[in-house]
Amino acid sequence: MTAGLTVAVDAMSGDHGAEVAVPAALEVLASTPDLRLIIVGRSEVVLPLLGAALDNDRCRFVEATDVVAMDERPQDALRRKKNSSMRIAINLVEQGEASACVSAGNTGALLATARFVLGMVPGIDRPAIVSALPSTGGYTVMLDLGANPDCNDDHLVQFAVMGSVIASDLHGIEHPRVGLLNVGEEDIKGTEEVKAAHKRLTGSALNYCGFVEGDKIFSGDIDVVVTDGFTGNVSLKAMEGLARFISGAMKEEFTRSAVRKIGALAAAPTLKALKERLDPRAYNGASMVGLQGVVIKSHGGADRMSFANAVRVAVMEARNGVPDQIVDLLAKVTATGVSSE
Amino acid sequence: MTAGLTVAVDAMSGDHGAEVAVPAALEVLASTPDLRLIIVGRSEVVLPLLGAALDNDRCRFVEATDVVAMDERPQDALRRKKNSSMRIAINLVEQGEASACVSAGNTGALLATARFVLGMVPGIDRPAIVSALPSTGGYTVMLDLGANPDCNDDHLVQFAVMGSVIASDLHGIEHPRVGLLNVGEEDIKGTEEVKAAHKRLTGSALNYCGFVEGDKIFSGDIDVVVTDGFTGNVSLKAMEGLARFISGAMKEEFTRSAVRKIGALAAAPTLKALKERLDPRAYNGASMVGLQGVVIKSHGGADRMSFANAVRVAVMEARNGVPDQIVDLLAKVTATGVSSE
Repeated sequence: MTAGLTVAVDAMSGDHGAEVAVPAALEVLASTPDLRLIIVGRSEVVLPLLGAALDNDRCRFVEATDVVAMDERPQDALRRKKNSSMRIAINLVEQGEASACVSAGNTGALLATARFVLGMVPGIDRPAIVSALPSTGGYTVMLDLGANPDCNDDHLVQFAVMGSVIASDLHGIEHPRVGLLNVGEEDIKGTEEVKAAHKRLTGSALNYCGFVEGDKIFSGDIDVVVTDGFTGNVSLKAMEGLARFISGAMKEEFTRSAVRKIGALAAAPTLKALKERLDPRAYNGASMVGLQGVVIKSHGGADRMSFANAVRVAVMEARNGVPDQIVDLLAKVTATGVSSE
Repeated sequence: MTAGLTVAVDAMSGDHGAEVAVPAALEVLASTPDLRLIIVGRSEVVLPLLGAALDNDRCRFVEATDVVAMDERPQDALRRKKNSSMRIAINLVEQGEASACVSAGNTGALLATARFVLGMVPGIDRPAIVSALPSTGGYTVMLDLGANPDCNDDHLVQFAVMGSVIASDLHGIEHPRVGLLNVGEEDIKGTEEVKAAHKRLTGSALNYCGFVEGDKIFSGDIDVVVTDGFTGNVSLKAMEGLARFISGAMKEEFTRSAVRKIGALAAAPTLKALKERLDPRAYNGASMVGLQGVVIKSHGGADRMSFANAVRVAVMEARNGVPDQIVDLLAKVTATGVSSE
């Protein structure tokens, strides 16, 4: 790769913009000796934050005069924001200047722009959003988390391939166990789409374990959970809502009386450890897979720790060459008989 | 109603059968002066457990020689188990002997049998599974939780009506706020089915609040969450899995060292209160709505407290005449312009 290990960072998007993105990216640069950074944004905002880092020959700045708004319609961003930090960061990947890009911007705009500029990996119809969730004993990779509300069996099979690559490359799992989300584990259950995908995945080159129900996301029994973007997005948001609800209820119960507050003090180290373990910031950095290039979406509200994690995901995917891995695994799966008839 | 307030209890189904169902039902009988019970099951199993309760003229026993197995296929249960406790409990509702029935049996078999025996409320195409989940400040009623993997806009509109009735009748909410689950809140997002349902619900006689994302299930902003049975079932199971995962992580962290264990002791009253507040047993008892009769499904693994809660749900729905309320609200909604064109 001519770009070596170079990550382009859209420094202007997200709720906190450059204030968070720049220091987070520099933190990862400091701890990753072979990494190069290209920081993209408005000079008057970014340059003061970069400061001495510009003397480092592993860090350079590229001017982008525009910014994609968080509520901008994807098609408008695509047509009208050709000088935005998001678009230029993606262009750098397309031009081979960078091997990955990271943005905390508007998901729809990032998806549409990345797809338009980079194009799809041959054999993959649509990009999917994939992320890792904490589970018993490790992580579970889940996709699609919202790029494709309507999916057919082709898409689901492609998601299974892409999820397997991410589980191997990012989490070092050799033959990732793949499960297809359904309303039950029996062959006769579910929609026509999942039944057709189930048939095609059974006996394929993937380590396919069959239908799984929603609770398997956290059980540690599988490494990759495949579902359509509607179900994936709704479940992910439902889980986020539940986690917030439980944490709110805990806070309420622990502050209900003076005695309870003393109990909370005594339990403080444990509660802190628990919070760290379940901290969603540690899992920030969703990949948009299926594109001819590595594109990582950080949560819009990401803080420094959280954005740094998204940059680390970009580094890992670039190092492993995820798009090429997808091509290879797809070829193997196709050769062993997963076909659409 | 000739049945007065009479609940038929399938005492043989579920993981624990009569050992749990009979004492749980008798507990609710003791605390509900106008309730009558019909306990359905095998005499040799049920009669010893009923004991002196048979002297109570509000409790009677009906023999059922057969039991539907937990893994029995719905169609087999329907065709071959005409003398099962499940079938006879449902028959009692159809015959007007009981105003509601409760079973901890196989969901698919209960749904198929209830639909065959009782038939649908006019204007409702399919039964849906509905339950209340704890949320900030109260409860959120959610449906469909798994009866219908494939749904069109007609079904979603009918679910909105049925969910509103349940929120009013069971939770005393006057104009329940209804949200339709989607991958975003903008009109342009989502599948064709949710977009069509959204259009029809907007401006209807329901208190429709528009599209909501998954985190709104717990936020207290809405009272009824409508979705298809695939998304509903997967999200519900995902939330159950997450709750178990968090509770497991808490236990691990609190027992990691002697110091942590002392912290846990000091925090014990709070942890107990938290556990009670989030106890899924308190929310047991899913309604199968849309049928011409009240049918309550208890969790298969329900313990006594949990099964008793399912019986209480049956009592409330029978008291309110949920099927009639659905007919009434559906007429109002249809009159104000929710139509399928």
